[in-house]
Amino acid sequence: MQEESVSLPPKEEFSEWYNDILWRAEVMDVRYPVKGLYVWYPHGFAIRRAVYQILRSLLDRDHQETLFPLLIPATEFMKEAEHIKGFENEVFWVTKGGQNELEVPLALRPTSETAIYPMYALWIRSHADLPIRLYQVVNTFRYETKHTRPLIRLREITSFKEAHTVHRTWEEAEKQVNAAIDLYREFYRKLCVPVIVSKRPEWDKFPGADYTIAIDTVMPDGKTLQIGTVHHLGDHFSMTFGIMFEDEKGEQKYAQQTCYGISERCIAALIAIHGDDRGLVLPHEVAPVQVLIVPVIIGKRREEIMTYANGIRADVEAMGLRVRIDDREIRPGAKYYHWEMRGVPLRLEVGPRDLDGRKVMAVARDGKRSLLNREEIRERVVELLREFNERISESAEGRLRSCIKRISDLGEIGSALEKGVVIVGWCGNYSCAQELEKKTGASVLGSCLDAEMSGEGNCTCIVCGTAGAHALVGRAY
Amino acid sequence: MQEESVSLPPKEEFSEWYNDILWRAEVMDVRYPVKGLYVWYPHGFAIRRAVYQILRSLLDRDHQETLFPLLIPATEFMKEAEHIKGFENEVFWVTKGGQNELEVPLALRPTSETAIYPMYALWIRSHADLPIRLYQVVNTFRYETKHTRPLIRLREITSFKEAHTVHRTWEEAEKQVNAAIDLYREFYRKLCVPVIVSKRPEWDKFPGADYTIAIDTVMPDGKTLQIGTVHHLGDHFSMTFGIMFEDEKGEQKYAQQTCYGISERCIAALIAIHGDDRGLVLPHEVAPVQVLIVPVIIGKRREEIMTYANGIRADVEAMGLRVRIDDREIRPGAKYYHWEMRGVPLRLEVGPRDLDGRKVMAVARDGKRSLLNREEIRERVVELLREFNERISESAEGRLRSCIKRISDLGEIGSALEKGVVIVGWCGNYSCAQELEKKTGASVLGSCLDAEMSGEGNCTCIVCGTAGAHALVGRAY
Repeated sequence: MQEESVSLPPKEEFSEWYNDILWRAEVMDVRYPVKGLYVWYPHGFAIRRAVYQILRSLLDRDHQETLFPLLIPATEFMKEAEHIKGFENEVFWVTKGGQNELEVPLALRPTSETAIYPMYALWIRSHADLPIRLYQVVNTFRYETKHTRPLIRLREITSFKEAHTVHRTWEEAEKQVNAAIDLYREFYRKLCVPVIVSKRPEWDKFPGADYTIAIDTVMPDGKTLQIGTVHHLGDHFSMTFGIMFEDEKGEQKYAQQTCYGISERCIAALIAIHGDDRGLVLPHEVAPVQVLIVPVIIGKRREEIMTYANGIRADVEAMGLRVRIDDREIRPGAKYYHWEMRGVPLRLEVGPRDLDGRKVMAVARDGKRSLLNREEIRERVVELLREFNERISESAEGRLRSCIKRISDLGEIGSALEKGVVIVGWCGNYSCAQELEKKTGASVLGSCLDAEMSGEGNCTCIVCGTAGAHALVGRAY
Repeated sequence: MQEESVSLPPKEEFSEWYNDILWRAEVMDVRYPVKGLYVWYPHGFAIRRAVYQILRSLLDRDHQETLFPLLIPATEFMKEAEHIKGFENEVFWVTKGGQNELEVPLALRPTSETAIYPMYALWIRSHADLPIRLYQVVNTFRYETKHTRPLIRLREITSFKEAHTVHRTWEEAEKQVNAAIDLYREFYRKLCVPVIVSKRPEWDKFPGADYTIAIDTVMPDGKTLQIGTVHHLGDHFSMTFGIMFEDEKGEQKYAQQTCYGISERCIAALIAIHGDDRGLVLPHEVAPVQVLIVPVIIGKRREEIMTYANGIRADVEAMGLRVRIDDREIRPGAKYYHWEMRGVPLRLEVGPRDLDGRKVMAVARDGKRSLLNREEIRERVVELLREFNERISESAEGRLRSCIKRISDLGEIGSALEKGVVIVGWCGNYSCAQELEKKTGASVLGSCLDAEMSGEGNCTCIVCGTAGAHALVGRAY
C-alpha cells in the first residue's frame, strides 16, 4: 500500500485549497476532457447521496418526486419572453439526431419551467387539483463562458433539485415561498452551513418571476455563494402556458406559481465552510464513513485486538451508523491522514492498552479526544457525533458573523468588503445600487431578511441619505 | 371528489391495455410534446424509486456509485470503431452553445463507455488498483426512428443503471460477467419477474464486446423484451483508451473490462407481467403504498372507526411498511377501484362489525381474503404480503413456462411463435439463423443459458441438421 502524505495548501489560500481538496479527498476529478464538466468520485458521490437524501426527506413531507424530460423543444422554450432573454446565451442546443438535422432544435434544460408547465396546463382543471407541489432532482445545463469551477460554476449541473408548485392565489403562493425558505434553512442547519436570506433586487430576480429570495453563504475568501433560490412566479408562466383552474364559484382563473432550487453548490458550501488544512470536515449525517475504527496493532496481539475492534464495529453498526475498520498494513498515522482528508467525523483507536482496560480512544475530526468505556460505546458514539456537529455548526456560525459588518460610512465599505459582506442602508433604487457597485466592485445582493443579522429599525440610504432598508453588499461567486 | 370508473381494455388486447394503464394508474404521461419523451407521474416515480432502491442495494454490496458527465466530446466518442458503427445513427448531437457553434460537437451519451474509460485510463496504474466496480444511474439518449413506446423504446432513457468494471485478466472479467448475471437474476426475483438468459449471437452483441449475455422476459403478447445485458468487453476498449496497469511482475498490461446495464424496461416488465384487467399488480417491495386501510363508515360510528383504523395504521407503520388510510367521502367501492388500479398489494377493510369483533378484513390485490384478529395484525400483514409475492411470482413463472415450446420440426415453429418463444437446435451459423429468421419473421435471440428451460444434452440444428445447441427464437420488442 502506498502511503499518502502530501499536504493541502493552507486554507487561507482558499482557491488553491479548494482545487486541491476536491481531488485529494476524492470528491471530484476535474480532468474530464470538456470544460465545465466534472466526474464524481465514489467518495464524493457518497457525500452527494447523503446530502440529497436529507433534502428529499425534507421535501417528501409535503412534496412528491417526479421526473420530466431533459430536452425541451425550442417552440416551448421560446414562449416566455423574459425567460428566454434570461437564458438565450446560456442554452445548449441539440440540432442533430444521427445524421439528420432536427426539425425543431431541442434545448438541454437550463431549468425546467418550460418542460413542466405545458404538462401542468393539462393536469390542472379545478381548484380541487391544487395545490400541486412537485420536485425533481436532475441534471441541467448552462453554456458558461466564464471561468468554470467544480460544484460552483458548471456546464452540467448534475444535481439540481427543483420544486415547482401551483396555487389558487398569490397569497397562497407567497406562503409556499416562505415555507420553502424555512425548508432550505432547515436543510442547511443539517449541513451545519450558516446562511443569509435576502430578497434579490428587481434586476437580479429570476427571469419571469415576481420576486426572488436567495439563500447565500459566505465562503472562506469572503465572497458570497448563492446556494438556493425561491421564486414567486405570480401568473407570468401560467398566462404563457395556459395553466387555468375553475375556482369555487365556477370561474376560470390563472394559477399562481412558485419554484425553488438547490444545486450541488450546497456541497461546495459544505466543503468550503467546514474543511481545514487537513481535509474535509463533514457533519456526521453526510459523512460516507461516520465512524472509523483503527486497530493499533503492536506485537503479537493482532487477533485479540481485531476481535475487540470487530465487536465495537458491530455495536456501532447496530446504531445504524456507517462504520469502517481500516486494517491495512500501514502506520496508524497514515490511516489518520487518509481518513481525516476524507472527513470522517469520529475515529476510534483500539490498541493493546485499550483492550486491557476495556477502553476505546475516540478522536473527533476537530481533535477533541475522549476516552470511552467499552460498555458505553453505543450511547457515547452517538453523543460524540452530535456534539461534534454542534461544535462545527457554532464555529461556522461564528465565522459567518465575524465577516458581516454593518457600515454607515461609505468610506469604510471597501476595507470591510475585503473580509466579507457588509450591511448598509439602501433606498431600493437602481441608481444608488449602481453607484455602490461602481464604487466597490461588489454587488447589492438585496434587502436582508434576517433581522437578527441586519438589526431592526429604520435606516437611511448610504448613498442618497433617504429612508431605506438594510441591504447586503458582497462580492459574489 | 370525482369517482373514477372507466375500465381498462382487457389485458388480452395487450397493446391497448399497456397504453391505457400507464396513464390510468398514473405511471407515465405520454403527452409531452416531443416524440419518445415521457413524464413520470409521482406515482410512477415512486415505483421507480423503490425498484432502483433494490437495484442499488444489490450493487452496493461490492460496487460503488459514481457519476460521469452526460456530454461526450465527438473526439472521444469516435475512438472505438465498432462502437461508433453501432451508434452513429442513434446519437443526438449538441452543436450549439448560446449563439455559438461548438468547436467540438458533444454527443448525448447513448451509453457511457467513451465518457468513463478515458478517466479509467487516468485512474488505473497498478494491479493493486483492480478490480474496479463502479456504476451510475443516469439518463441516456437514443435518436429512435422506429415507433417509440413509454418505458420500452425511448429517446430519453431516464433510468439507465450502467456498471463498468475493470479486471486484471480475461477470466476475472468473465467471473464478473457471471456475478452480474446472478445479480440481475436476484433483482428480477425481487420483482417477481421471470427471465430467460441467453448468449446473443455474434452479430447481435454490443458494439465493441467480446460477447453479450442478455436477460429477456416474455411479455403478455408473446414477444420478448430484453431487460438487461451483460457484456464482456475483453481489451477492446482498454486498447482504444489506453487503460493499462503494471502487473505483479512489473509488466504493463491492458486491462480486461465488462459492462452491464438495466434500464426502465425493468418497470415495463413489472407492469406488463403482473398487471390485470383492473390495473397494476405490484410486488410489495416496490409498491408506493403497500397497505391501504379503508374505513367503511356506516352511521354514527365514524370517530370510533377512525380511531380503530388509525391504531391499525400505526401498527403497520411500525413494521416499516408504507401505509395509507383513504378516508375520502366516497363509496368504498370507488376507493377499491382507485387503489387496485395503482397496484396496492394489500387492503385492510375496517367496518363497524370488525371493530366490534376486533377483526380486520384483509384483501390481497389478487382477491385472496383473510379475516385477521386485531392483535396479530403486525405479523399477519407481513406474512400476507410475502405470500402475495409468492403467488404472483409463481403465476408469472407458470405463464412464462407455458409460452416456451421446444420444437424440432421446422413446420411447427410458426404457430408456436404466435404464443411466445421457441427453443430449437441451432448449429450457430449465421446462414441457418438467417434462414430461420426469414422463415418466421422472428429473431434468433441466442443460445439458451438456462439448462432447466432448454433441456440438457445435445441436439441438431433445426435447419441444417448438424450438431448444435439449444437456441431461443422469439419475436422481440
